[in-house]
Amino acid sequence: MYEKIIQNVQKKTPLVHCITNYVTVNDCANIALACGGSPIMADEIKEVEEITSLSDGLVINIGTLNEKTIQSMIKAGKRANELFHPVILDPVGAGASKLRTETAFYLLKEIKCSVIRGNASEIKTLCEGKGTTKGVDVDERDAVENYLTHSISLAKKLSRQTDSVVVITGAIDVVTNGEITYIIRNGHPLMAKITGTGCMLTTVIGCYCGANKQNILEATVTAVGAMGLCGELAYKELQKVGRGTSTYRTFIIDFMSNINKVVLEEGLEIERR
Amino acid sequence: MYEKIIQNVQKKTPLVHCITNYVTVNDCANIALACGGSPIMADEIKEVEEITSLSDGLVINIGTLNEKTIQSMIKAGKRANELFHPVILDPVGAGASKLRTETAFYLLKEIKCSVIRGNASEIKTLCEGKGTTKGVDVDERDAVENYLTHSISLAKKLSRQTDSVVVITGAIDVVTNGEITYIIRNGHPLMAKITGTGCMLTTVIGCYCGANKQNILEATVTAVGAMGLCGELAYKELQKVGRGTSTYRTFIIDFMSNINKVVLEEGLEIERR
Amino acid sequence: MYEKIIQNVQKKTPLVHCITNYVTVNDCANIALACGGSPIMADEIKEVEEITSLSDGLVINIGTLNEKTIQSMIKAGKRANELFHPVILDPVGAGASKLRTETAFYLLKEIKCSVIRGNASEIKTLCEGKGTTKGVDVDERDAVENYLTHSISLAKKLSRQTDSVVVITGAIDVVTNGEITYIIRNGHPLMAKITGTGCMLTTVIGCYCGANKQNILEATVTAVGAMGLCGELAYKELQKVGRGTSTYRTFIIDFMSNINKVVLEEGLEIERR
Repeated sequence: MYEKIIQNVQKKTPLVHCITNYVTVNDCANIALACGGSPIMADEIKEVEEITSLSDGLVINIGTLNEKTIQSMIKAGKRANELFHPVILDPVGAGASKLRTETAFYLLKEIKCSVIRGNASEIKTLCEGKGTTKGVDVDERDAVENYLTHSISLAKKLSRQTDSVVVITGAIDVVTNGEITYIIRNGHPLMAKITGTGCMLTTVIGCYCGANKQNILEATVTAVGAMGLCGELAYKELQKVGRGTSTYRTFIIDFMSNINKVVLEEGLEIERR
Repeated sequence: MYEKIIQNVQKKTPLVHCITNYVTVNDCANIALACGGSPIMADEIKEVEEITSLSDGLVINIGTLNEKTIQSMIKAGKRANELFHPVILDPVGAGASKLRTETAFYLLKEIKCSVIRGNASEIKTLCEGKGTTKGVDVDERDAVENYLTHSISLAKKLSRQTDSVVVITGAIDVVTNGEITYIIRNGHPLMAKITGTGCMLTTVIGCYCGANKQNILEATVTAVGAMGLCGELAYKELQKVGRGTSTYRTFIIDFMSNINKVVLEEGLEIERR
Repeated sequence: MYEKIIQNVQKKTPLVHCITNYVTVNDCANIALACGGSPIMADEIKEVEEITSLSDGLVINIGTLNEKTIQSMIKAGKRANELFHPVILDPVGAGASKLRTETAFYLLKEIKCSVIRGNASEIKTLCEGKGTTKGVDVDERDAVENYLTHSISLAKKLSRQTDSVVVITGAIDVVTNGEITYIIRNGHPLMAKITGTGCMLTTVIGCYCGANKQNILEATVTAVGAMGLCGELAYKELQKVGRGTSTYRTFIIDFMSNINKVVLEEGLEIERR
């Protein structure tokens, strides 16, 4: 399955429209290219419908949201829905400010999202309408490794509420469509020490879904596994050369640009429940 | 010639005002410094005229244009024209949305550009008033290697229409002032797998022109050749270390920071027609 | 002292709210994580007070200021003042445009800043109400190595005017609270050849102060020394591998992610006057 998903990305070069934050946007564009997609970043309200129409998928990331881009997100999302393009939502910092929480709910109300990806704090906020998000990083009390059962139940709940595939990333990643759940044990803790690994993953999910529109759940699981595996392989490589977190970021994208079925088959640790 | 152009950049440290996109802006700033220039990014309408006045050249890149920055581009461009500063236009995604196409034409109408740099799809859009641009990457049907003769003719046509030096980048690069045409066979296909190589080149052209105002055609050709050569040398280095596209990006900027006449004389493949 | 300051950062993981420019924001976020902090970038006026309230410190950087973000800076700064959070100001390009100079003065009038960090041109502008800033890089006539005595006197003057710790960075760095002055001789000239070393330092100061609110002067000195030391160590490493400025940038952040007391005790060259 994973092999086919990845082949489709590399064969189709899906064009993915990203309305995203200005902090990690360059890494998102580079990892989209690395994984086989073609990114286009555009957030001016006058052009977002047209850009989305050209594309194979839409990624909405509220990392540095502002009043203008929120309207662009809504407009692009509605157009993507009309065209049955996959829409991937990254509710960065939901729970950290009223604006972020309300915007996430507003987007979920107006747009049918194919996939929602967040950390445990963000997903809990969306699920329960309140949260304890501290900044854009996960609140320790929500760390998924200590709460795997609870996380699965949260992810399923949000999935059923929204009819979306829900991804909770953390030490262990959870992906569910409300019925089938995958547990992914790839990744490395050092990924939390570079900005944007979450945003990058969301973008990769956008590319994988854009090239596999009929298999959103499987495309998402493969993307999550691939990103985690890149984090692992990059860490091993980092140990060899003995450098720090900026080299680690470089290596993660490097591995994504060399992903292939062999690497995936050797390394993915995915459990289906 | 190339040697002198480059010496001027390194000697004069031209200050280049960039109104550019938020995706590749960091790479643009770093490659400007690497090639010997000094970049200043400023897009607030209240200050763009003053910043342009301080500078030796202006780079306008519409990669993530919005209503506010379009006005800043116009204002800065007019001021640069008054001061006879070179203005370099990168019409990113012209043809991909009505806003981008119209903005590119609006800029060309209001501002005299010294140099216009785009891929074949973008330049065709500007030349013919319509295009088939798919996102921000070149449409395959427009790929310059298959259409070299056609590309030269397009570039010449736009050059005569606008009285600008026109650059079409692709597997083979074309630079023309409408009379004299240069064909540059440096570069590597992997450059398309990192975001912003086009934007970076446009910025380097801005630096080279800013330090060689009397030789815009030659400065542009040298910048295109230097960038392509950095892409080639970086690829060779990448093969040695066996990594991926993010390391490749790093190496390209690294080589630009070490460019010198020896490297250029050894490697430039420029044909004058 | 330095050891304790750094331990506090790594132990407390201070959340630092940054309203900063879109050029170097990714490097700022990554170096904040590397040094032990947790960055959150947010500039929409509707959420800045809430985000600041969650945080341990606020960094204001006017590198790509615009009318909207200036208001966000004021609002966040006032809230931070109410909460006694350290506020760090980076007046990027003060002196280069009327807008930047006036904004810097407006911020200083409305907000009590714990630390102001700039190059000699920027600090002179703030100190004297006029300047000769050429772009965002230091004007040569203001280079601190030639004017150490003058720089110290400028820094002290601004410090007394504003009741802030003032940092002038250059070949030699000066940090003063108006009474006690530290001279830091770490760093390397190549740091000026990558964009954002100043912005990154300001962010590191934000993290160090956020975790050491009772020792703003010492936290600032330690951050300046740590950043300079990373620049030095990165340069040594760069010589070994023989690459260029983009690798240098990577190495600087790498070293920051591995900073520890041994490294600091071995390498800091700080003189107290």
